[in-house]
Amino acid sequence: MKILSINAGSSTLKYRLFEMPEAKVLMKGAIERIGMAGSNLVISVGDKKIKKEYAIKDHKEAVKYLLEELLNEGVVASLEEIEAVGHRIVHGGSFYSKSVLLDEEVIAKIESINDLAPLHNPANIIGVRAFMEAIPKSLEVGCFDTAFHQTMEEEEFLYSIPYELYEKYGIRKYGFHGMSHKYITLKMEEILNKKDVNLIVCHIGNGASITAVKDGKSIDTSMGFTPNAGVMMGSRCGDIDYSLIPYLMKKGNMSLEEVDNILNKKSGLDGLTGMSDLRDLDEGFKNKDKNIVRGINMYTKRIAEYIAKYFIKLNGEVDAICFTAGVGENDPMIREEVIKRVESLGIKLDKKVNEETVTRKGLEGVISSKDSKVKVYVLATDEEQMIALDTYELAK
Amino acid sequence: MKILSINAGSSTLKYRLFEMPEAKVLMKGAIERIGMAGSNLVISVGDKKIKKEYAIKDHKEAVKYLLEELLNEGVVASLEEIEAVGHRIVHGGSFYSKSVLLDEEVIAKIESINDLAPLHNPANIIGVRAFMEAIPKSLEVGCFDTAFHQTMEEEEFLYSIPYELYEKYGIRKYGFHGMSHKYITLKMEEILNKKDVNLIVCHIGNGASITAVKDGKSIDTSMGFTPNAGVMMGSRCGDIDYSLIPYLMKKGNMSLEEVDNILNKKSGLDGLTGMSDLRDLDEGFKNKDKNIVRGINMYTKRIAEYIAKYFIKLNGEVDAICFTAGVGENDPMIREEVIKRVESLGIKLDKKVNEETVTRKGLEGVISSKDSKVKVYVLATDEEQMIALDTYELAK
Repeated sequence: MKILSINAGSSTLKYRLFEMPEAKVLMKGAIERIGMAGSNLVISVGDKKIKKEYAIKDHKEAVKYLLEELLNEGVVASLEEIEAVGHRIVHGGSFYSKSVLLDEEVIAKIESINDLAPLHNPANIIGVRAFMEAIPKSLEVGCFDTAFHQTMEEEEFLYSIPYELYEKYGIRKYGFHGMSHKYITLKMEEILNKKDVNLIVCHIGNGASITAVKDGKSIDTSMGFTPNAGVMMGSRCGDIDYSLIPYLMKKGNMSLEEVDNILNKKSGLDGLTGMSDLRDLDEGFKNKDKNIVRGINMYTKRIAEYIAKYFIKLNGEVDAICFTAGVGENDPMIREEVIKRVESLGIKLDKKVNEETVTRKGLEGVISSKDSKVKVYVLATDEEQMIALDTYELAK
Repeated sequence: MKILSINAGSSTLKYRLFEMPEAKVLMKGAIERIGMAGSNLVISVGDKKIKKEYAIKDHKEAVKYLLEELLNEGVVASLEEIEAVGHRIVHGGSFYSKSVLLDEEVIAKIESINDLAPLHNPANIIGVRAFMEAIPKSLEVGCFDTAFHQTMEEEEFLYSIPYELYEKYGIRKYGFHGMSHKYITLKMEEILNKKDVNLIVCHIGNGASITAVKDGKSIDTSMGFTPNAGVMMGSRCGDIDYSLIPYLMKKGNMSLEEVDNILNKKSGLDGLTGMSDLRDLDEGFKNKDKNIVRGINMYTKRIAEYIAKYFIKLNGEVDAICFTAGVGENDPMIREEVIKRVESLGIKLDKKVNEETVTRKGLEGVISSKDSKVKVYVLATDEEQMIALDTYELAK
């Protein structure tokens, strides 16, 4: 069965066509700058990579071109072969704890919480509608970033604010990166050959979130009401004292929007070091650049603190700590700096193996030393495949 | 040497007269509702407690009445016996890492950072000036809530926001409750008969802060730029996802001030349970009241998380975990709920001893079990005495 995995943003549409259940990628790529000058379509089939420039005025046109290319490249003989399309949808609110078939009722529910993800959800739904129109016979499936975390208990997802603000406005921790945390959890169940794994999953990319998994379920996660909570990230601040906001507005003569923009886009590693490329940061750290050492220390300290928090939450019964996503998979220095800070929990790396293990070179697996009380893994995540897997389950 | 310890608020003035260095309390009490209807002066001398009602129009008058009562009660024969007055001052910014003699230059510096503690610092200084005028020969000493935490390193006190916001506006973690954390640290040095103690001090009153002490110095603390950060408190929210603020303003049609007011004064245990008296909460917890159980679980979970964070920060080398302040000293249930969550770190209570140890009954000391890897103490804090001790050091 052929399944398309789709991640639609306001001006982009990333896609991957899978043959399921083998999860073989037949074609992948992205359409970028939709509705803007310089819009283009990138196609990868096997070793071939093509970039085509078109004037693409909206998502409807983008989908039309994409489907044409699937036929052109011969990866499908007819569009009817695409039996289902899985869509990444950022926010499912408290409504969805699993991926679901999308119909008008579900779409209306998702649209009712657009305010929770004003930049993402509307763009995701534009993508859904474009496919509904273009290939009406295929099933559309919604795969939510929040769904995996819906197993959190009320005590974990509530904030220490008046309870009525949760009831009235849905203010609570939702958590994100759910497709990645779920993918890693399933992968670990396979690797350890058991259900009900207890994990601390460190998804560290430009955005970053840490999840405590107990018996295969998310019981807590570092992102919160929005993705700008928890650990320090590439350009997001993560946890701060909120009271600095009114102070900064007053002292810096800024609006709330301006401060929010700084905290969301100009903070984190970038705000502290002026750099965001981890290769530069690795280099600077090695050369003991003062700003960079400070930034990396703060960055890795926060991750270590979440590991400690989740270690006690799991009562010390942790099958594995897993590093994944761009940084987690490919930056041994960051992993070493994190794990060194939790050695008092009996967790230790095999430095040499850690150094060698980067998924960019196709390597993953255990990086902890033999005497480590908790195993540490590096694993390649694959949110697109997770979307295809969930979609396949509903479509088969 | 007789030393007055003073804590002046906008309409209150709490005082304690010490004979130093014995730290014997000669007289104590408070003047309340200064400048308001029903202003009054409370005096405790030995077992005698008197309440007098006066019309007290300002702090200057309050100090005048207080000094008269010291003479009336015969605790001093002449006001010249009061050789020094130690003042609690909430915020010393990055200027003061110790208590200091107050002169016009220092006062100007303190006033230059009034914006960092707009409710407290100006009131504290009004108290200082009233004593300077009333007993000009005595030394005035400023004892800062922030000073003990000035030993934090830059990596610990910086937020993950652009570095220039720290340089330009002084936005950083300051930490509070310093006089209490210092008092407990000195007490533990005495108890353990060693310098350079490593502690996790849990000051849990209506406000609450947890401090990691390494080699006798504060290396990190849970309160931040303001006292509304860190653990959940009686009515303050502590750490939250700041992004809920703009959402709540929009959805609830509130101003930033209104939201801030909710987060500062109507959140925490109070916001979740509608109760703030711990006796009621203890009762409700015992009776498994759903809201109260949830509130207490969230409250104790946050404290446990900070203990875990500071445990790894101290590399597991922790001489003791100390509970202090109103709740920490007198609520065995809260302590049990906290410690039960960190048992995976090898920390265990002696339940019976914990149950019995409340400073209200004059009992303090070790509450951990014999096989606990880290000793747990209950200790009565005494910020007023710490102020007197610091003041004595500068005055003697």
